[in-house]
Amino acid sequence: MIKIALIGFGYWGPNLARNFSTLDSCQIKYIVDSNKQRLSLVKKHYPNVTAISEVDTVFNDREIDAVIIASPVSTHFTFAKKALTHGKHVLLEKPMTSSRAEAEELIELAKKQGKVLMVDHTFLYTGAVKKIKEIIEGGQIGAIRYFDSTRINLGLFQHDINVVWDLAPHDISILRYLVDEEPVSVIASGVSHTDNKIENIAYITLNYKSNMIAHFTLSWTSPVKIRKTLIGGTKKMVVYDDLEPTEKVRVYDTGFKVQDNSQLLIDYRVGDIYIPKVEQTEALSGLAQDFIQAMTTGKKPLSDWKSGLSVVSILEAAEKSIKNRGKEVLL
Amino acid sequence: MIKIALIGFGYWGPNLARNFSTLDSCQIKYIVDSNKQRLSLVKKHYPNVTAISEVDTVFNDREIDAVIIASPVSTHFTFAKKALTHGKHVLLEKPMTSSRAEAEELIELAKKQGKVLMVDHTFLYTGAVKKIKEIIEGGQIGAIRYFDSTRINLGLFQHDINVVWDLAPHDISILRYLVDEEPVSVIASGVSHTDNKIENIAYITLNYKSNMIAHFTLSWTSPVKIRKTLIGGTKKMVVYDDLEPTEKVRVYDTGFKVQDNSQLLIDYRVGDIYIPKVEQTEALSGLAQDFIQAMTTGKKPLSDWKSGLSVVSILEAAEKSIKNRGKEVLL
Amino acid sequence: MIKIALIGFGYWGPNLARNFSTLDSCQIKYIVDSNKQRLSLVKKHYPNVTAISEVDTVFNDREIDAVIIASPVSTHFTFAKKALTHGKHVLLEKPMTSSRAEAEELIELAKKQGKVLMVDHTFLYTGAVKKIKEIIEGGQIGAIRYFDSTRINLGLFQHDINVVWDLAPHDISILRYLVDEEPVSVIASGVSHTDNKIENIAYITLNYKSNMIAHFTLSWTSPVKIRKTLIGGTKKMVVYDDLEPTEKVRVYDTGFKVQDNSQLLIDYRVGDIYIPKVEQTEALSGLAQDFIQAMTTGKKPLSDWKSGLSVVSILEAAEKSIKNRGKEVLL
Amino acid sequence: MIKIALIGFGYWGPNLARNFSTLDSCQIKYIVDSNKQRLSLVKKHYPNVTAISEVDTVFNDREIDAVIIASPVSTHFTFAKKALTHGKHVLLEKPMTSSRAEAEELIELAKKQGKVLMVDHTFLYTGAVKKIKEIIEGGQIGAIRYFDSTRINLGLFQHDINVVWDLAPHDISILRYLVDEEPVSVIASGVSHTDNKIENIAYITLNYKSNMIAHFTLSWTSPVKIRKTLIGGTKKMVVYDDLEPTEKVRVYDTGFKVQDNSQLLIDYRVGDIYIPKVEQTEALSGLAQDFIQAMTTGKKPLSDWKSGLSVVSILEAAEKSIKNRGKEVLL
Repeated sequence: MIKIALIGFGYWGPNLARNFSTLDSCQIKYIVDSNKQRLSLVKKHYPNVTAISEVDTVFNDREIDAVIIASPVSTHFTFAKKALTHGKHVLLEKPMTSSRAEAEELIELAKKQGKVLMVDHTFLYTGAVKKIKEIIEGGQIGAIRYFDSTRINLGLFQHDINVVWDLAPHDISILRYLVDEEPVSVIASGVSHTDNKIENIAYITLNYKSNMIAHFTLSWTSPVKIRKTLIGGTKKMVVYDDLEPTEKVRVYDTGFKVQDNSQLLIDYRVGDIYIPKVEQTEALSGLAQDFIQAMTTGKKPLSDWKSGLSVVSILEAAEKSIKNRGKEVLL
Repeated sequence: MIKIALIGFGYWGPNLARNFSTLDSCQIKYIVDSNKQRLSLVKKHYPNVTAISEVDTVFNDREIDAVIIASPVSTHFTFAKKALTHGKHVLLEKPMTSSRAEAEELIELAKKQGKVLMVDHTFLYTGAVKKIKEIIEGGQIGAIRYFDSTRINLGLFQHDINVVWDLAPHDISILRYLVDEEPVSVIASGVSHTDNKIENIAYITLNYKSNMIAHFTLSWTSPVKIRKTLIGGTKKMVVYDDLEPTEKVRVYDTGFKVQDNSQLLIDYRVGDIYIPKVEQTEALSGLAQDFIQAMTTGKKPLSDWKSGLSVVSILEAAEKSIKNRGKEVLL
Repeated sequence: MIKIALIGFGYWGPNLARNFSTLDSCQIKYIVDSNKQRLSLVKKHYPNVTAISEVDTVFNDREIDAVIIASPVSTHFTFAKKALTHGKHVLLEKPMTSSRAEAEELIELAKKQGKVLMVDHTFLYTGAVKKIKEIIEGGQIGAIRYFDSTRINLGLFQHDINVVWDLAPHDISILRYLVDEEPVSVIASGVSHTDNKIENIAYITLNYKSNMIAHFTLSWTSPVKIRKTLIGGTKKMVVYDDLEPTEKVRVYDTGFKVQDNSQLLIDYRVGDIYIPKVEQTEALSGLAQDFIQAMTTGKKPLSDWKSGLSVVSILEAAEKSIKNRGKEVLL
Repeated sequence: MIKIALIGFGYWGPNLARNFSTLDSCQIKYIVDSNKQRLSLVKKHYPNVTAISEVDTVFNDREIDAVIIASPVSTHFTFAKKALTHGKHVLLEKPMTSSRAEAEELIELAKKQGKVLMVDHTFLYTGAVKKIKEIIEGGQIGAIRYFDSTRINLGLFQHDINVVWDLAPHDISILRYLVDEEPVSVIASGVSHTDNKIENIAYITLNYKSNMIAHFTLSWTSPVKIRKTLIGGTKKMVVYDDLEPTEKVRVYDTGFKVQDNSQLLIDYRVGDIYIPKVEQTEALSGLAQDFIQAMTTGKKPLSDWKSGLSVVSILEAAEKSIKNRGKEVLL
């Protein structure tokens, strides 16, 4: 039986607790939070878990095999480093760390210790994203030419991280999972409407050697909630709308072809639309199982540290570009 | 009776012809097009109009009071200059010219000649945009903090201009009409998926001194058509969806307030939504009347050369930023 | 060159005139209307057509091959009878006549005279309905078990016919075209909210020997416009939404199967959705060509008198059921 | 502390258990179910509740103040009668009973025993229905002229009751709550596509003395889920779409007026649309509190036996009309 400690029982921690607690192969021994109210919630819902405010207990307990870190981003590096140093496997909430350098140090340490270091990019485990991956790998879409994602709503303003660090990890991890190419540079812009200078609206463009382009629209201040991604290929195009209850993925049999020797250079093809049935199981449950498997069988998890590192690198570059007013930042 | 010549009977010309021909106060004398097929269409639908392929006839005819130029952008400057020089009023299809310098020269000439120089920014005459203007001027929205517009579809690839020059004039002219502040700089990115290097996808950010931000998503290669603009104010927010048949404008009684002295810095307010009835008359008919009025009464038209110049200046800066890979271009 | 007369230039007449006037194989000689204003519109738009208020001119003119009757329903029988008697082919606006008896008399006369007698059930010529027909004939849907149509909006109140006679012909003609079985009885209910006792809301159920059921919801007084039809088969189901601009037809790979020997009797299957591309040409143009072809080649038209008679029979029975407060009327 | 027993832990029972268990003023002592698997679920989630399969324990336990009955409809009467006879308050799942006679007998008994007899018409406690009630009572809608409800989806086929008894209680209870008039007669039709002759599609019309009309479309076999109600008044109209996540209620400032002395008899008014913010709390929690209050303070509950009786009377009449093929059944 794998014994787990969960650090952080704020917004996302309860979802992690709920999903790991239903697995037969593991047991949550500790849930750690500095807030008394959150700890009393833990006691109410998980009477068999030890609710504590002192995090070091977790690292020093030899029984603990793995630590899940869902505390604020600024604490990720310190907690993960301690956990790895004490020989624990680590699952980090997204974004992995506050900087690329921190991510790289953790990765080195995990390799040295021979421990699993995984990042919670939950969307990789959704039925919709898995279906899109399957469609792309089946060759239906052709070469991907653009990836355009909008993730906006009236969101909780974070105090420690801006909208890029808060929302973009979802879309960048999806992009990275679906597209087999790393971007070469970032151009970003944004604005803060609060005194603390934390951006609440941001726009990011990723440039690719292959001439693909990716773009992210991110906002905490939109009256309408939109979570829509357009993926354009040379053969077909996909629209992924995460807010659709049952029709999240649409495949458009639509493309365009360059006609060289005519006056009308571009020829469109508009055809049928296909809405595949998508698996409805909870994504976080799949992630929890993937983490346990990685620990017990050595199987590489889907949402691994490569994904975490790549996301953090892009976030860092995007922030730098915003601060430098759109200056292209090479990756 | 005002006598008019229309140059260009391609995509947009027929709409101009149809709208001007229904006005009692004016008469279309010539329609000019270099394409024989287009001219035979003119003859069929407008038997009383002289269909010609030679444009100079128009300028040399003393009877002609006004020239409407709906030929390719690259010809705008030459034709408009000739028309103004010959003492004609001019209505130019959008975008006004291929460069800021050209626009400025035309404006000087129009002033000197005392003639109307107007640009066809049709959207300013739609019921939806007029209603939003009315709502903003009524003070309901408060200070505008952001303007985020998406205009994408499977669009006709242009051979002479990129997606920025083709689509952005609509959104920039709307923005300028609604927001009483000129941007200070532009950051833009884009990509071309064709050999001719003409961008088919582009993203533009406009920065403002007041900390407002504007952003445009433009594409000719989206399988879904989207024409949606979000306008966020300090008091309320507006969503303008031009594809909604009857509910184009939605006012969200939603805002956010910065709370300094609490841990949760931002306080949201989510309230009712209001969908005002919007006038359904054809926008181009309003523009046609505005042009005639400007000629006959001297009244400043809504879509004047200031609007045209501002749009061209921003387009030029956006293109420069794209070519310089996101470098901020000051206006 | 076939010479045609059009009687009635009210709401629908102009559409008929426009479509027939673009055909090379025929020529509109007369347009008849009792209203002076309508006649002056005719003169403006169709200078080559003779605009008259006296209908007998049409019947007495030997040059006239065919008469299109788009005048009020109450006049259909008289005008069509005269036209057929004078040896003209006839196209009747829907509904064909005010009663089954009238329809039958016209049919007998047309047979005797050897002339085409056709009814304008425009929807049979739409890309959407043709696509659904094709899908059903391909066997994808299986046996049809239900047909449920809603056609409601803020509609023009008619003075001479109720909402059943006004709106139901569309849906009944579509139903009849798609389903190879005639109903055995009608149950209907409705209400009038005006002093003239003309129903503005009505509900019709058609019963079938095969245990299929069809239902129509009809209203002139709905604040939202809905034109949606559900067609459920034993294998798949179709949803036809006429208000969708590009996605009018959706095929659901969804069915249910009766499981006899288990406690859960019914087993559902929910699968992919498929949105076929649908032809976008104007339906009325197809109808016009079909009418001309029927005259010149003897080919049976799609929207023939059988369709017209069946529709009128059902309308008559539905009205009778409403007046008898839901009493089943056998067909 | 009020002690409660819950009979039935199938589809709806767990929701009742969850909501009553969070109330401080009451305690669930027993949960009864004949299915062993369901009982083991009870033990897992409610360790402090006694899980039993023998229902009489409940009636014989003097500590029990109230019994909630969520077992199959056919058992409602027997269980409720026993509970009332033993001096317990009763909350019945909808529909109240299998017949009007049963409902009336229970009501007499409840009155005699001085106990609360309440029916779980959950929708009366939703934010949306409460908001519509408030709007109607405020006089905005005027006199209601029609109520048209569609409740269709791929639903669970019931073995003991048809689609009318399963789905219509929701809509009839809402209708009755919003409209201050009882219907005078019912006309209904339906069909069964299974061997057991249980209708899976049904249509019900209710007639009113005031000339109002109500209609219900009910189906377990629609590939699309629709839960939409149109409520038309003399002044304004309401559309209630229960599937909209945040915009469930829309008020259309739309009406029609009869103009007697003109040729165009009806004059439409189409105005703004207003989408009020609607309370988001769980409806069942409000119902639970209402039941407790009714017991402790004697306050008449919202979803009282009058509502239950009226619903059952209409269901009974509708079924009779279906069996008699549309024959009007007087109420």
